[in-house]
Amino acid sequence: MPTNILTAIVAFAIVMITCPILLPVLHRLKFGQTEREDGPASHLKKQGTPTMGGITFIAAIIIASLAFGLPGASMLLPAILCAFGFGMLGFLDDFIKIKLSRNLGLRAYQKIIFQVALSLIFAIWAYLSPNIGSSLYLPFTAKTIDLGIWYIPFVMFVIIAEVNSVNLTDGLDGLSSSVTLIFVIAMSMIFSLLSRQANALGFSAYATNLNSMTVFCFAVVGSLAGFLWFNSYPARIFMGDTGSMALGGIVAILGICSKSIIFLPFMGICYVASAVSVILQVGSYKLRHGKRIFKMAPLHHHFELLGYHESKIVTMYSIVTALFCAICVLGFYCR
Amino acid sequence: MPTNILTAIVAFAIVMITCPILLPVLHRLKFGQTEREDGPASHLKKQGTPTMGGITFIAAIIIASLAFGLPGASMLLPAILCAFGFGMLGFLDDFIKIKLSRNLGLRAYQKIIFQVALSLIFAIWAYLSPNIGSSLYLPFTAKTIDLGIWYIPFVMFVIIAEVNSVNLTDGLDGLSSSVTLIFVIAMSMIFSLLSRQANALGFSAYATNLNSMTVFCFAVVGSLAGFLWFNSYPARIFMGDTGSMALGGIVAILGICSKSIIFLPFMGICYVASAVSVILQVGSYKLRHGKRIFKMAPLHHHFELLGYHESKIVTMYSIVTALFCAICVLGFYCR
Repeated sequence: MPTNILTAIVAFAIVMITCPILLPVLHRLKFGQTEREDGPASHLKKQGTPTMGGITFIAAIIIASLAFGLPGASMLLPAILCAFGFGMLGFLDDFIKIKLSRNLGLRAYQKIIFQVALSLIFAIWAYLSPNIGSSLYLPFTAKTIDLGIWYIPFVMFVIIAEVNSVNLTDGLDGLSSSVTLIFVIAMSMIFSLLSRQANALGFSAYATNLNSMTVFCFAVVGSLAGFLWFNSYPARIFMGDTGSMALGGIVAILGICSKSIIFLPFMGICYVASAVSVILQVGSYKLRHGKRIFKMAPLHHHFELLGYHESKIVTMYSIVTALFCAICVLGFYCR
Repeated sequence: MPTNILTAIVAFAIVMITCPILLPVLHRLKFGQTEREDGPASHLKKQGTPTMGGITFIAAIIIASLAFGLPGASMLLPAILCAFGFGMLGFLDDFIKIKLSRNLGLRAYQKIIFQVALSLIFAIWAYLSPNIGSSLYLPFTAKTIDLGIWYIPFVMFVIIAEVNSVNLTDGLDGLSSSVTLIFVIAMSMIFSLLSRQANALGFSAYATNLNSMTVFCFAVVGSLAGFLWFNSYPARIFMGDTGSMALGGIVAILGICSKSIIFLPFMGICYVASAVSVILQVGSYKLRHGKRIFKMAPLHHHFELLGYHESKIVTMYSIVTALFCAICVLGFYCR
């Protein structure tokens, strides 16, 4: 536990130091946000707020978790690479968006190719890893299910879905950082339970790996707490696709390494809400000749147009995430 | 752990159910907030927001912690009484404020008499309790200090100071609920560590008591999470003195029962900031012929007048509390 807390404090400190340094640099390079033309009108005032802030917490996560979690490197390093890989993809996207003043960034097919490639690598790694394999935990029962070779396409789907859902959730000041912070706290509890169980059963190498994942979780929590100092409403910096795709990669890899992928749609209920609302909205628009279900998608913009304050929506999403995470952690303890 | 999580979920549910029922009742009874005449001008629009919302979380804390923490009743019941006692005092204050349309409530000397009486009871209880006694833990060392009979006046001072500081911190939407939520999470970690240590040493009755205090902490966390749904910016309900004095009592009794009173000023750094800023401001005004140190006291109003958004100040206070709590929990683990 002391190591975990220290990791969080170090990650927090790195973000608190680098953010104020990065802010004027991003301003000078004109790496400001270009708001979606079809977003809420009230968001136009956010045009020009520096973006790509995700760089700071990605750096903090890598440094802090390597400093304290190296003993379990065989699980930690792939997790870090997953965060970094999707962060790089997001960075490319942000960079093109800003440099070409094109508010959509990478072409859809380019993103998909990258995502499929990256997710294939991590799915194969997880499948072959002696610590993970192809079985998944179920809530409230000691049984597991084994997907066999189907584990690989399933995990690919999960990674791609998480990355894009977290990306879609990043639409209000502090929204995806708050929700992910809470999600990762819950994940740290799951890893710490698994690690204690593994220790009790004598699988000490496995326990060390799981312990390093707890350290990784605390690095994420600390760095997101620091990022929220600047990113909470009213935001002085956005994480950009750099940050949101990295967080998506983190959410997915935490589920994979803890074999708790089945829990992901519940613990990440808010990510699901973002993705499903977009799918329903687009589907309805196309199939029902221009009719919409929501005032605007993703769902958080719908609430915004219903008159909820941005800051209130973030609180509501955070509390809902905390509730679903609490139930899932309970389901995990009661296996 | 499953019990703790269940406690939090039950407490959360009680608040989520009772708050929407209480809201129209408070409106009808005209139990709305009367804003301080000398507060920030921007707060005048909050006039009339229902107050006394603290009733909901006090009820939730009592029900949920009794439901799951009864085995350790000899420590849990006094803790509940402390929350309830100071909550009642706050309720009296709120009630008089509203019924007499007097925005200061109880006279200062009346409050002090009640507070001295209540704090004396709990100080004597703690002093005589076989689980607590007169010794205090120190951070980063295995030593303790024993205050002997001086423990009683010291603890009285701590209780009165905490109750009034938390009360002063309750000046922005969601401020004292957020800060206290984080404080209590840290306290739950301290109790759960102490309980494991006591168990390992064979003091199973003591461990049961400490375990019940962890349950109590989770009840507070769950109920405050529910309360924040309504109390976060923009607030639809305030906790009133009912809530803030109860929370002050909770903060103090958690410190007392865990023998970690020395940690309180650090873990509750934001409460200290509120109290000290008021003392300095009043002192300066009286001694330096009307000169002020802060634009307005307590400190959060100073930040508000400097141009920080209410919601941002709440985030900043929460993050600072989390950092100081993390350091203190670290100091507790490294004893």
